[in-house]
Amino acid sequence: MSSLRGIQQPELSKKLYKLIKTENHAIGAYESAGRETHSIATQLSEWGESTDDDGVSEVSDKLAVLLAEIADQEDLFAQNLEDSRGVLKQIRNTESSVQPSRNQKAKIQDEIQKLKYKEPESTKLPILEQELVRAEAQSLVAEAQLTNVTRQRFKEAYDLRTAAMIERAEKQILLATQARRVLNLLDDTPIVPGEERQHFAGSQQAQSFLNDAETGLRGWSSSVEPVHMNSKGLGTNAMPDSTVGETLDSPSSATMSTAQQRIEDRERAQEHGTDDVVPTATYA
Amino acid sequence: MSSLRGIQQPELSKKLYKLIKTENHAIGAYESAGRETHSIATQLSEWGESTDDDGVSEVSDKLAVLLAEIADQEDLFAQNLEDSRGVLKQIRNTESSVQPSRNQKAKIQDEIQKLKYKEPESTKLPILEQELVRAEAQSLVAEAQLTNVTRQRFKEAYDLRTAAMIERAEKQILLATQARRVLNLLDDTPIVPGEERQHFAGSQQAQSFLNDAETGLRGWSSSVEPVHMNSKGLGTNAMPDSTVGETLDSPSSATMSTAQQRIEDRERAQEHGTDDVVPTATYA
Repeated sequence: MSSLRGIQQPELSKKLYKLIKTENHAIGAYESAGRETHSIATQLSEWGESTDDDGVSEVSDKLAVLLAEIADQEDLFAQNLEDSRGVLKQIRNTESSVQPSRNQKAKIQDEIQKLKYKEPESTKLPILEQELVRAEAQSLVAEAQLTNVTRQRFKEAYDLRTAAMIERAEKQILLATQARRVLNLLDDTPIVPGEERQHFAGSQQAQSFLNDAETGLRGWSSSVEPVHMNSKGLGTNAMPDSTVGETLDSPSSATMSTAQQRIEDRERAQEHGTDDVVPTATYA
Repeated sequence: MSSLRGIQQPELSKKLYKLIKTENHAIGAYESAGRETHSIATQLSEWGESTDDDGVSEVSDKLAVLLAEIADQEDLFAQNLEDSRGVLKQIRNTESSVQPSRNQKAKIQDEIQKLKYKEPESTKLPILEQELVRAEAQSLVAEAQLTNVTRQRFKEAYDLRTAAMIERAEKQILLATQARRVLNLLDDTPIVPGEERQHFAGSQQAQSFLNDAETGLRGWSSSVEPVHMNSKGLGTNAMPDSTVGETLDSPSSATMSTAQQRIEDRERAQEHGTDDVVPTATYA
């Protein structure tokens, strides 16, 4: 199912738009899981208290504290997914903004083709050819920006996503391991009718397991293998390091010279009778 | 918010009934998270393919495979939560079935009190006293069954729940770690306009990371500290080992002798002029 808004997205950003929407649903699911697990913690503690069994009451209460922390980790995971999703949006926005320059180039190419067929001697043709070179220059910049932003943000988004997953996992292992120790304090040896349960003697031990969990959480730090980024210097203009600080409206000298070279190449190509209008950038 | 059905639950099982319902919501949330993550995997792969960037295409496709496995782990976690929830239901059912014997005892006690006040010489009184002893014997059995089932199943349910959490966490760490390695194969060094990306050379390496993940998953086994169960021999009658094989309708000799002793104690107490009708089981 896709909404009307999805259909209005430019072709180039449609797929990512859909992905970002689905990420939102996933985030909602984890938020809900966190909320429900919080409720479970509260209800578990209340049930334990109502059993009139000091062992069940104490153990369920301590388990509930750990479950509430586990629920917090689901919440944090959802927040981190939201950050990752925010980074994907930056790719989508660039995709959307690159679409017009693709359209423009395609439109001029189309006009030239038609005119060449209908009116090969038209004086409009040289003008259109000049327009095309300009459109191509713009397009070259746009496509470079797109690949730069895409690769950088794609890595960044999934760096965040996988790191968040590992953080949740490591912290929940820590909490669940202490939960199992607390659980082991409850003696489940069956009794015969009329026999009384021993008074629960594990309260202090249970508390110390909680403290261990707290200490573990506080001392936790990420130990993931880093995702290496080579695009740290990428400016807001989405061009490499050397061009940082210049805006899109005033392309860098590198960009200008490349665009200029394209124009010269094109002129050379036309002189030699080729009319390949698709840029096949072979220069580095 | 509690439904009308919740209100119809016996008092004794109301809290657990609510908890079991909330567990169902949590399970639904994890099922949804699994489903959405599966969609994300597919959409990520489709987006990557549409970028016309062989690096992004290849890396996103391999990431998608790992994300789909991660989604499978959410599904499995939801199934394991369902198992844990099923175990809690057994406590709830015992709670529900113990309620009538509590009610019965309370009702007879109530009648005796009223009659002693209104008609202390009534011939109905000795009959009611006998009925009370029988109700108490039944109640002693019921309460022993309740504590036996509660402690056993409570430990079992949270053993399953915490083990499931640790399993999901360990497997997702394994998958996310390989996902980060795949991600690192993508060079995000920015390019200038007209510059071409190098052909992506990491396909084989990416595949080997996928293989590592698969091998890791296949070789995974649980290494949690066990939750020790002392109630393994608990029979369907919810009585200790020695009574296994006997049904609730034919209580064990241990149960009978205890009930018998209760009756004798009660008679002794009445001879000595006390009329404490609440069982205060002091014998082991």
